Amino acid sequence: MPENKAVVYRGMGHVEVENVGYPAFEIKDGPGVNPDNVGRQLPHGVILKVIATNICGSDQHMVRGRTTAPEGLTLGHEITGEVIETGPDVEFIKTGDLVSVPFNIACGRCRNCKEGKTGVCMNVNPERAGSAYGYVDMGGWVGGQAEYVMVPYADWNLLKFPDRDQAMEKIRDLAMLADIFPTGFHGCVTAGVGPGSTVYVAGAGPVGLAAATSAFLLGAAVVMVADLQKDRLDQARSFGCETIDVTQGDPRAQIEQILGEPEVDAAVDAVGFEARGHGDDAQTERPATVLNTIMDVTRAGGALGIPGLYVTGDPGASDDAAKEGSLSIRLGLGWAKSLSFTTGQCPVMRYNRQLMMAILHDRVQIAKNVNATVIPLDQAPQGYTEFDQGAARKYVLDPHGMIK
Amino acid sequence: MPENKAVVYRGMGHVEVENVGYPAFEIKDGPGVNPDNVGRQLPHGVILKVIATNICGSDQHMVRGRTTAPEGLTLGHEITGEVIETGPDVEFIKTGDLVSVPFNIACGRCRNCKEGKTGVCMNVNPERAGSAYGYVDMGGWVGGQAEYVMVPYADWNLLKFPDRDQAMEKIRDLAMLADIFPTGFHGCVTAGVGPGSTVYVAGAGPVGLAAATSAFLLGAAVVMVADLQKDRLDQARSFGCETIDVTQGDPRAQIEQILGEPEVDAAVDAVGFEARGHGDDAQTERPATVLNTIMDVTRAGGALGIPGLYVTGDPGASDDAAKEGSLSIRLGLGWAKSLSFTTGQCPVMRYNRQLMMAILHDRVQIAKNVNATVIPLDQAPQGYTEFDQGAARKYVLDPHGMIK
Amino acid sequence: MPENKAVVYRGMGHVEVENVGYPAFEIKDGPGVNPDNVGRQLPHGVILKVIATNICGSDQHMVRGRTTAPEGLTLGHEITGEVIETGPDVEFIKTGDLVSVPFNIACGRCRNCKEGKTGVCMNVNPERAGSAYGYVDMGGWVGGQAEYVMVPYADWNLLKFPDRDQAMEKIRDLAMLADIFPTGFHGCVTAGVGPGSTVYVAGAGPVGLAAATSAFLLGAAVVMVADLQKDRLDQARSFGCETIDVTQGDPRAQIEQILGEPEVDAAVDAVGFEARGHGDDAQTERPATVLNTIMDVTRAGGALGIPGLYVTGDPGASDDAAKEGSLSIRLGLGWAKSLSFTTGQCPVMRYNRQLMMAILHDRVQIAKNVNATVIPLDQAPQGYTEFDQGAARKYVLDPHGMIK
Amino acid sequence: MPENKAVVYRGMGHVEVENVGYPAFEIKDGPGVNPDNVGRQLPHGVILKVIATNICGSDQHMVRGRTTAPEGLTLGHEITGEVIETGPDVEFIKTGDLVSVPFNIACGRCRNCKEGKTGVCMNVNPERAGSAYGYVDMGGWVGGQAEYVMVPYADWNLLKFPDRDQAMEKIRDLAMLADIFPTGFHGCVTAGVGPGSTVYVAGAGPVGLAAATSAFLLGAAVVMVADLQKDRLDQARSFGCETIDVTQGDPRAQIEQILGEPEVDAAVDAVGFEARGHGDDAQTERPATVLNTIMDVTRAGGALGIPGLYVTGDPGASDDAAKEGSLSIRLGLGWAKSLSFTTGQCPVMRYNRQLMMAILHDRVQIAKNVNATVIPLDQAPQGYTEFDQGAARKYVLDPHGMIK
Repeated sequence: MPENKAVVYRGMGHVEVENVGYPAFEIKDGPGVNPDNVGRQLPHGVILKVIATNICGSDQHMVRGRTTAPEGLTLGHEITGEVIETGPDVEFIKTGDLVSVPFNIACGRCRNCKEGKTGVCMNVNPERAGSAYGYVDMGGWVGGQAEYVMVPYADWNLLKFPDRDQAMEKIRDLAMLADIFPTGFHGCVTAGVGPGSTVYVAGAGPVGLAAATSAFLLGAAVVMVADLQKDRLDQARSFGCETIDVTQGDPRAQIEQILGEPEVDAAVDAVGFEARGHGDDAQTERPATVLNTIMDVTRAGGALGIPGLYVTGDPGASDDAAKEGSLSIRLGLGWAKSLSFTTGQCPVMRYNRQLMMAILHDRVQIAKNVNATVIPLDQAPQGYTEFDQGAARKYVLDPHGMIK
Repeated sequence: MPENKAVVYRGMGHVEVENVGYPAFEIKDGPGVNPDNVGRQLPHGVILKVIATNICGSDQHMVRGRTTAPEGLTLGHEITGEVIETGPDVEFIKTGDLVSVPFNIACGRCRNCKEGKTGVCMNVNPERAGSAYGYVDMGGWVGGQAEYVMVPYADWNLLKFPDRDQAMEKIRDLAMLADIFPTGFHGCVTAGVGPGSTVYVAGAGPVGLAAATSAFLLGAAVVMVADLQKDRLDQARSFGCETIDVTQGDPRAQIEQILGEPEVDAAVDAVGFEARGHGDDAQTERPATVLNTIMDVTRAGGALGIPGLYVTGDPGASDDAAKEGSLSIRLGLGWAKSLSFTTGQCPVMRYNRQLMMAILHDRVQIAKNVNATVIPLDQAPQGYTEFDQGAARKYVLDPHGMIK
Repeated sequence: MPENKAVVYRGMGHVEVENVGYPAFEIKDGPGVNPDNVGRQLPHGVILKVIATNICGSDQHMVRGRTTAPEGLTLGHEITGEVIETGPDVEFIKTGDLVSVPFNIACGRCRNCKEGKTGVCMNVNPERAGSAYGYVDMGGWVGGQAEYVMVPYADWNLLKFPDRDQAMEKIRDLAMLADIFPTGFHGCVTAGVGPGSTVYVAGAGPVGLAAATSAFLLGAAVVMVADLQKDRLDQARSFGCETIDVTQGDPRAQIEQILGEPEVDAAVDAVGFEARGHGDDAQTERPATVLNTIMDVTRAGGALGIPGLYVTGDPGASDDAAKEGSLSIRLGLGWAKSLSFTTGQCPVMRYNRQLMMAILHDRVQIAKNVNATVIPLDQAPQGYTEFDQGAARKYVLDPHGMIK
Repeated sequence: MPENKAVVYRGMGHVEVENVGYPAFEIKDGPGVNPDNVGRQLPHGVILKVIATNICGSDQHMVRGRTTAPEGLTLGHEITGEVIETGPDVEFIKTGDLVSVPFNIACGRCRNCKEGKTGVCMNVNPERAGSAYGYVDMGGWVGGQAEYVMVPYADWNLLKFPDRDQAMEKIRDLAMLADIFPTGFHGCVTAGVGPGSTVYVAGAGPVGLAAATSAFLLGAAVVMVADLQKDRLDQARSFGCETIDVTQGDPRAQIEQILGEPEVDAAVDAVGFEARGHGDDAQTERPATVLNTIMDVTRAGGALGIPGLYVTGDPGASDDAAKEGSLSIRLGLGWAKSLSFTTGQCPVMRYNRQLMMAILHDRVQIAKNVNATVIPLDQAPQGYTEFDQGAARKYVLDPHGMIK
């Protein structure tokens, strides 16, 4: 049985590549594993040889110490791979299939799964609804920034690529189906983006760029992306976005310059709770800034998509309220404008097949737009560091050197 | 030309019935009238002889001094009446029609109106989207707690009752179509209430009771109504609601007792910004209490309808943030549960015809459920006072003694 | 191992109760079994002791010889039971659970299941999308008008009743969750029925009565049910429906008498392809009559729900086109009115939990409304005969004498 | 007062350009004018100087004698123009505005208009719901293939272009907003087209090409267009469509060759009742061919958009049933696949603003895709003839020589 090298969280600002042991069809005790999940049998699972596994902005929250993630946690929830072993209950997925793994782990049997709400599956996390691989407070499933990983409820969870060779040709793009492309797309859909929309995307990190890409795919007329970092704004501009530099102050005026009016049809928060202020405040953390801004710049009757992560506990927050996830939100303004808000994990399964089709038929260039950058698994620590410093890149780990 | 007696705001805690002059097809200057609206011609309007005009909880915000409403403002936005004069541009509405007036004034020509978002019409309030009769910051349209009132864009705005006699038989019920019945219904619809739902309604005032009534009409299985006042809870119980007394503490435990689990499918905030705390905090204003509670008691993947009013400016708020409408909201919790939130004025026109049909065909007893209490126009000041003290009643003013 | 008595189709007009053998976790060859399904292993299945199993109007199509159903087919797709054995892959359903079985068999793993379209599951019927127990052209799954039955993909398919005693109290109502209640409800939902709607339901058989019940649950203002049989119309009238006797001629005039106008908001076809004409034509089969009528009586911009069965092959049809399922439909009329049409099997899982909640909390009396009539399994042949003759009853078979 | 030259129907196969008189704010008697509409006052109307007015496939139905259109009818319902005079009730539209006119005439005050169903307005056509300019059985409104035309309910109906110069730059594209672009788009939306969809469009005439363009705008992965004419298929191929030549036989096999499977996610009927057969039948009229084909090639659970026109009376039909708009439709097949069908006029107002935005921001090249061909008004008869012969062009009449 092969070893299994993986990216492990080793305390604030620190990840290492270590052997974590070959995956099994059972949940074993370990860092972050929910006690009620220990010993759980997984005959419905498969083992994947990981082809691509990306570093996510939400991994950074853990590595920056902004969560209660325990040391020793194996990271990684953006997984694409080849099935090399199937559990006895697996019926439709076969060895040799190339597949994308939605980052949300879902059972495919509970009420929420039946309603398509796979981001809040009720059967995989004893603590609360919703789960993910290699993530704090998510039930303790082993992460997939690794050579091999186990995926439970495989017939339900996995998206099979129709053709192996075609898939390997576009593997950089397909690797984005595990999380950021559907997540950005969900932000746009829930914000009501459609043909002819004007759209404001807060954040030009990978999720923001994926949201902008999604907005174009949905037919948006004008897509504006806001960020504090020049490189990321350049990246957004590279595929037709207008850009808004929030270090220059409030975005309303900049929107008006671009659009002729200060408000958009739809806005997406692709930043989340580690937001910083605008203008003079740009160096200071202001966790409610993005939420308050998107209310301000969205027209009355519009909608806000909020895929950016907000947490129930943030040990690194600047004030006590924020430590419990309470933010000072200008709800009166939102109410006066009759806005609606959609929060939460993207239910990846609702979108990944359709987005795969768009990739396979060359309707969208998601890898290029997010500047997908392939590095070996061993260089993961460096990838984390560069990404944390704001590199305008989406790092894709290539554990087996299979990506050309 | 007749006089026109009306209810006028005369400073904190004080309303009077005065002659405000007969309505005209033109906006004249006066308290609260937006300067840009002065002189506006209204050939599309009609004059109504008011048959019923209700006191609303949102009127109380003004009378309690919790807004910037100017003295001299004529109040009243819940209007039912008979058309006695039509402007020259009115084509389909005729003299003698009995009609319900949606509290939102809408032009029927702007983008938002065309999209059915009549609560945020762009052409009737120079200051912002959305308008209403007799309300602060809403453009300065004269209120309808009066003998006569002018309704603009009558062909668009008015809902005609099909039969005069039938309408007078059910006038107490039909009077609720102007605001609270659609508003409660909107809360339920946007919270996703449907057949079999379990529902939590915060607030047993008229809007809360209308929401509870709506939940039953939509097929809900269990409707729980929460309040601090015993009389209002009794009223809720009178038509089949379960009740939750929040003076006894957090509602989660009480929900669990009723339902066997501590969370509901859908929740409606029928309280708004003047919320008080729960349990020991029940005497203290806690403007975010209801919002935080409905996040807490709604299941992951659920939705929240927020028809309760939140404002952009509250001079009487207990802290500076709340004075600007900023509240400390546990958004991290909502996000973890993938909740969605819908805020804002109910677009009455989206629902009033259907609810009228339900009333006329005896599917719903809204007047009884909200304890509609008819009083003469002259007794309006007393009605305001009693309602402010928490009477479990919905006061209906009867300016012409037409309601038997 | 117990014997297993079941209702078996023995040629036109003829069913018998026979021992068909105890169910296994494997599909065995037999009448109507698709060859590609023979030998299929079903470790995800459970064995139910059948508590209630209803005779359905669609069973009658087979027994009347209006399909290509083979002799020897075990009938029955409306099943409610107790789990007495679980296959090795079953994780959440437990022995002792009381459950409702959606009549559509679904895998819970294919694209259609993931989209909630369990009526057209792609993995259970080698011939086409969609499957059902004991039904012609549906893959050959053994029917459940039996003492025992096997249900595959049990974790996905089964709806568990929360409490055993409570369930047995309301078992007559809960038995309708397997098919007709959701089917009638689906007809209403796809026809756009909501609060205040005026509704025309074609057919006062059990599905029609379930549709009428559903319309009330959805808040409809007026529900009109049309049929040729006086008893069935009486049954409809017993719970508040208006009735239309189509032997008296075209329904438009009768609708106008009831409603004051000849058109409704929404119409449901609860008859299907064995429709007869109206008025003088009432004794003659006219397969397109209902479709053409509902187009005629529905207002411009309305919608039609068509849960009534239309088939791809009808050996007993009166003309060659109808033998292939081609009907002469007045589409020009439908187009001029901008109607939309929704056809097909009801995806039961989309609705059964919610309707169960409505039953358990006494919001709906479905058993009473459809006149549920419990008979022993042995009397099934008589039940088929009486039902075929138009008895205004819904026959519920009680194989183990468990229903009091 | 200027003369007003216009295209007039002069009997089967024959149109002429004649002076029809300058438009007035009143409906005058004339060919096709509904008697109940004569003398109707239109103070809410405007007079347009027509900049572009297109010949539509549905005009051809009249000119080919396939309707009961009377001689002398002024044709034309695809109108773009400049406001040169406003009626006394017009408030928001101003002289000098450049506007697009939705082909459906709508009052903006009836129930259907309030619900966004402007294709079936109840107040503009005394005969039935729904109306259009210059069209048989549509109330008798004067057509707009003319120098000048009157547009009623102008504040409601007109879409104003934000900038005059920008609009004139893109006037060929914007001219498609009056009908075919929204109509094709509506076909796609109601067929459920979205990101990643595979789409079958029946018909490569202008509406079919507009549907294909819309499918791409909506993010479709693969768009296949079927027709009998090589030139039209070439036109479809010019912007990335796959093409299916139905003279070569049934499309299923051709779809399979392109897609690897014989069925699509979504299908649009852009042909209507004058359909011809496939393969050997390609020269013969088969009015139900397209409907039956789209049922055949759409996957179970899919949806069909049917913007192609079907009529209630067709004097030129080949059989008696078709003369009344009855077609032999394989509904059994559609039912087995759980398909849904949406028919009727596109409610243009639901889409035109958004599509205008997509045009103005260069997201879509509708004029190029439909091969917009500008000709003077005087050459209209020749345009009708060439279009009738199957020219792969969309003829745009330019009455005042304003299009460069």
